[in-house]
Amino acid sequence: MNYKLNYILPVLLCLMMGCNSKKRDGEAQQSTLIFPKGEKVTNNNFTGTVYLHTMVEGDSLNTNSVGNVTFEPGARSKWHSHPAGQILMVTDGVGYYQEEGKTKMILHKGDVIKCQPNVAHWHGASADTAFVQVAITGREKGPTVWMEAVTDSIYLSKENNKPGI
Amino acid sequence: MNYKLNYILPVLLCLMMGCNSKKRDGEAQQSTLIFPKGEKVTNNNFTGTVYLHTMVEGDSLNTNSVGNVTFEPGARSKWHSHPAGQILMVTDGVGYYQEEGKTKMILHKGDVIKCQPNVAHWHGASADTAFVQVAITGREKGPTVWMEAVTDSIYLSKENNKPGI
Repeated sequence: MNYKLNYILPVLLCLMMGCNSKKRDGEAQQSTLIFPKGEKVTNNNFTGTVYLHTMVEGDSLNTNSVGNVTFEPGARSKWHSHPAGQILMVTDGVGYYQEEGKTKMILHKGDVIKCQPNVAHWHGASADTAFVQVAITGREKGPTVWMEAVTDSIYLSKENNKPGI
Repeated sequence: MNYKLNYILPVLLCLMMGCNSKKRDGEAQQSTLIFPKGEKVTNNNFTGTVYLHTMVEGDSLNTNSVGNVTFEPGARSKWHSHPAGQILMVTDGVGYYQEEGKTKMILHKGDVIKCQPNVAHWHGASADTAFVQVAITGREKGPTVWMEAVTDSIYLSKENNKPGI
């Protein structure tokens, strides 16, 4: 019996160390999130749960606003367009981006999208994985123009266009 | 002898597992770098070794250019200003930012700086740690105006202003 304990005790100790090192992995993964998650968005411009942290507010000298947007799995914006365009930089997760008349794109960490002015588009998380992006939006030509919600059938289809376009 | 081996073998095995998990930690740290490092900058607008990856080129519809800039320890820009201002987002490391007439600031991952148009400033890595930033620069009012190099005494001092201002 004592003989068996001599095997079991060191293994148990090392398994405990292993759990601890797994925890450190989790912490390292957390630290890849660079900017704060911010507050839950409460307006009706999105489907699902979305968080926004505004890093920079546009002003009269530099009209760019910069925000960190986190989409939970399945969450997405409505169709919308920006009078001065938008740049999206993906910092974590897996997401979708689609412009009207074009195929839906799958986005990963490190991808950068330039959406030209007045081009209707939507973006959001994939169905299974959250999605984090930094959005740079010029405010010099007016606010975002919001349109209809992205239906589940559009959201889930592999290749689709905005209906009627 | 056999009795001692019963202690030592499981411990050795677990130590090997521990080394492996340490390697995974390192990989996780590497993956915090989101955008490519790009190419070594060869112009004379910087002191030390700097890398640039341009993610977005400004055009007539959206004049913002977006670049990922990596400064090796001790590297920094010359004093310069932007006719349409600049936004800096720190994604990794420790760096410095200073506007003319103001105290040097220490920047860390997650910090965001808005530098207004025509304000002379410099930025770069700290002396010991590399620094990675995303720079958003409007090109609609002309190119960056480059000035003199940041001397070692200015770079290393805790609180200093641009000479003569």
